Amino acid sequence: MESFIDIAKLAKKASVKAQGLSGIIKDKGLIAVADALDKNKNKIFEANKKDLEFAKELVENGELTKSTYNRLKLDENKMRDMIQGIRDISKLDDPVNKVLLKRELDDGLILQKVSCPIGVLGIIFEARPDVISQISALAIKSSNAVILKGGKESKNTNKTILDIINEALSHINEFPQGMLNQVYTRDDVGEMLKADKYIDLIIPRGGNSLVKFIKENTKIPVLGHADGICHIFVDESADFDLAKRVVIDSKTQYPSACNTVETLLIHKDFANAKELIKSIEDMGVEIIFTPETWHKEYSDLKLAVKYVDDVNAAIEHINEYGSGHTESILTENKENAEQFMNLVDSAGVYHNVSTRFADGFRYGFGAEVGISTNKTHARGPVGIDGLVIYKYKLVGNGQIVNDYATGIKHFKHKDISI
Amino acid sequence: MESFIDIAKLAKKASVKAQGLSGIIKDKGLIAVADALDKNKNKIFEANKKDLEFAKELVENGELTKSTYNRLKLDENKMRDMIQGIRDISKLDDPVNKVLLKRELDDGLILQKVSCPIGVLGIIFEARPDVISQISALAIKSSNAVILKGGKESKNTNKTILDIINEALSHINEFPQGMLNQVYTRDDVGEMLKADKYIDLIIPRGGNSLVKFIKENTKIPVLGHADGICHIFVDESADFDLAKRVVIDSKTQYPSACNTVETLLIHKDFANAKELIKSIEDMGVEIIFTPETWHKEYSDLKLAVKYVDDVNAAIEHINEYGSGHTESILTENKENAEQFMNLVDSAGVYHNVSTRFADGFRYGFGAEVGISTNKTHARGPVGIDGLVIYKYKLVGNGQIVNDYATGIKHFKHKDISI
Repeated sequence: MESFIDIAKLAKKASVKAQGLSGIIKDKGLIAVADALDKNKNKIFEANKKDLEFAKELVENGELTKSTYNRLKLDENKMRDMIQGIRDISKLDDPVNKVLLKRELDDGLILQKVSCPIGVLGIIFEARPDVISQISALAIKSSNAVILKGGKESKNTNKTILDIINEALSHINEFPQGMLNQVYTRDDVGEMLKADKYIDLIIPRGGNSLVKFIKENTKIPVLGHADGICHIFVDESADFDLAKRVVIDSKTQYPSACNTVETLLIHKDFANAKELIKSIEDMGVEIIFTPETWHKEYSDLKLAVKYVDDVNAAIEHINEYGSGHTESILTENKENAEQFMNLVDSAGVYHNVSTRFADGFRYGFGAEVGISTNKTHARGPVGIDGLVIYKYKLVGNGQIVNDYATGIKHFKHKDISI
Repeated sequence: MESFIDIAKLAKKASVKAQGLSGIIKDKGLIAVADALDKNKNKIFEANKKDLEFAKELVENGELTKSTYNRLKLDENKMRDMIQGIRDISKLDDPVNKVLLKRELDDGLILQKVSCPIGVLGIIFEARPDVISQISALAIKSSNAVILKGGKESKNTNKTILDIINEALSHINEFPQGMLNQVYTRDDVGEMLKADKYIDLIIPRGGNSLVKFIKENTKIPVLGHADGICHIFVDESADFDLAKRVVIDSKTQYPSACNTVETLLIHKDFANAKELIKSIEDMGVEIIFTPETWHKEYSDLKLAVKYVDDVNAAIEHINEYGSGHTESILTENKENAEQFMNLVDSAGVYHNVSTRFADGFRYGFGAEVGISTNKTHARGPVGIDGLVIYKYKLVGNGQIVNDYATGIKHFKHKDISI
């Protein structure tokens, strides 16, 4: 078995060659991958059955939750969605080789800022075998190499899926060997977090504790979010019916999602506060008026509630206790809405809508890499654009800096329309 | 004296208020700052004199280099450039509140991606007091709060400059207190690197060892570069006169700059190799044919030279030993030039021009925050755009996700031109 560092070196080499893949070849690869998964789906179901048998024992012993077991299980519907997801990614615009800026620095000296892949992505995910095909497809489309580490419960399924994908790509000459890699052990995770020489970006897909652990144990940039402590502020002038509908959707539509509301801030003079709280309780939500901490993500039918003096107090509370994910103000006062959206320091700042809209597919990105609460690179729901960076290409005919330093020549800095 | 954490908390609070500053107010502040520095320049010269007296002793004792002493020294010319730099920044477009994307998700449900400040910047720099006014101006323009830590040699100058800047801003009500802060001790640097709760981005301005130390000792994103190991590849078909001019400029125009060439790769069949090397030596450059390591940045009139088989060998060498900064191919072969520019994984990939062009001012950015070799957020020379990120603003009239999940409503995802 290859060591992690061998795999990482191979991925780094492959990432250089992957920069040269054309959009046409990449889409050809994606369609070949989708076809191959479709053709070999029984092999995948068999591998998945093996994983499920093992996982069943773990559930019986109380070592695995029933919901993890369910996420692990692949059925015809999930398989169809998985394969369709790859075909959808093949239809997206090529995110690489986009000219972002074109500027004539001087006669015959042309600067271009061009999008390019990041390099090698490290993906650490839990028991959801559909992640492996989705991330592989996103990596292909964005010309990045990738090292995947899935949960041990789905090892057979993951291995079978990636083997099928790599087999399909091996028939297309242009794809470099070692572009899509998988590792399996806990030790590999440790090695990955240390491999800042080879890995350019780590994307964790899983629960808070996984993401926190990764962020605290690597110097490699991490794209993701640990907590999703989302807030709704019901202003004095909020429409009661609207508030009821939006708060209930934000809390109950999918309580364990990261964009679910966890804290409700209510203006002290909002007339329908009691009715609003009752209507939330009627949906089976437990209201917590004096929580142990305002930093808590319940991921459950529980909602912390606090009365605040005004929009400024709401903004202050959110910036102090929030996780920078998504917050919504419900108000008929446009000035307050603007104040809230400008001063709340979160990836998503909403007015009169549910926090549950924070999602790459709902934003129309076509694919979602994850949701980031970072303040650099990519923030909020991240589409495939989050997997690219840019380089500057400068083409001339012998220009030297000394001519400009001595005043013989002068820069023109004339933008050329793209 | 306040503790570092007190200052960091104050900066964090100020950063929220700074998000609300309008472009007009920010430019008013910048002009007030420039005027105040101009009016009080004698105070600054006096403080600088004090620093210089102390530094002179250090030079005599061999504790400080003569070149550091020179960088520390402010004269009328440097002062004029410093003040003009602030006025220039006031004339740039406001990088904040730019609408980057506008999309109708559905009727009355409008998504906007809007640029916004990053938050709190930590700046660690060495003995160049002009950095303090430049970074303060960039922070004001981009609505970021900042904590500056300069070299101890320039403490008096730095303190005097920032006091004048803050005094000027204190007359403009909108500017929040604590937006521009300064700390002075080595312990403060340690505290800054640990303060990931308060600081969103660290920008080191100084030598390799400073940047390396910072990158290795913080979890906060760092914008910058440690090494600048730039390469030129002279291809078989390179024009001799062009090659001579470009290589000499790249090596000798400013040998200690980060974008100076350190390794020259020559195609084994380039006919004028010996003449080229002689002409470089004639400029006082020492040629090193078998360096101890290809990883070295000489920052001096020294140049490592290696013969390679072809453009692919050159690309491989650069991706193995380079620092991802700037590399140039000199060739008349367009295919090779394209291959080189696509597959060399560096911030700047050039064809037939000097590596010394890698610079924010030469690229026409108006101001330079630094040069980054990162693979996320910002790469290459970074202008003021590198100091902003974005947030998503979503405005509706009571929309809930459940209507879309259950198929009652469907997304339109219609882009609106900006």
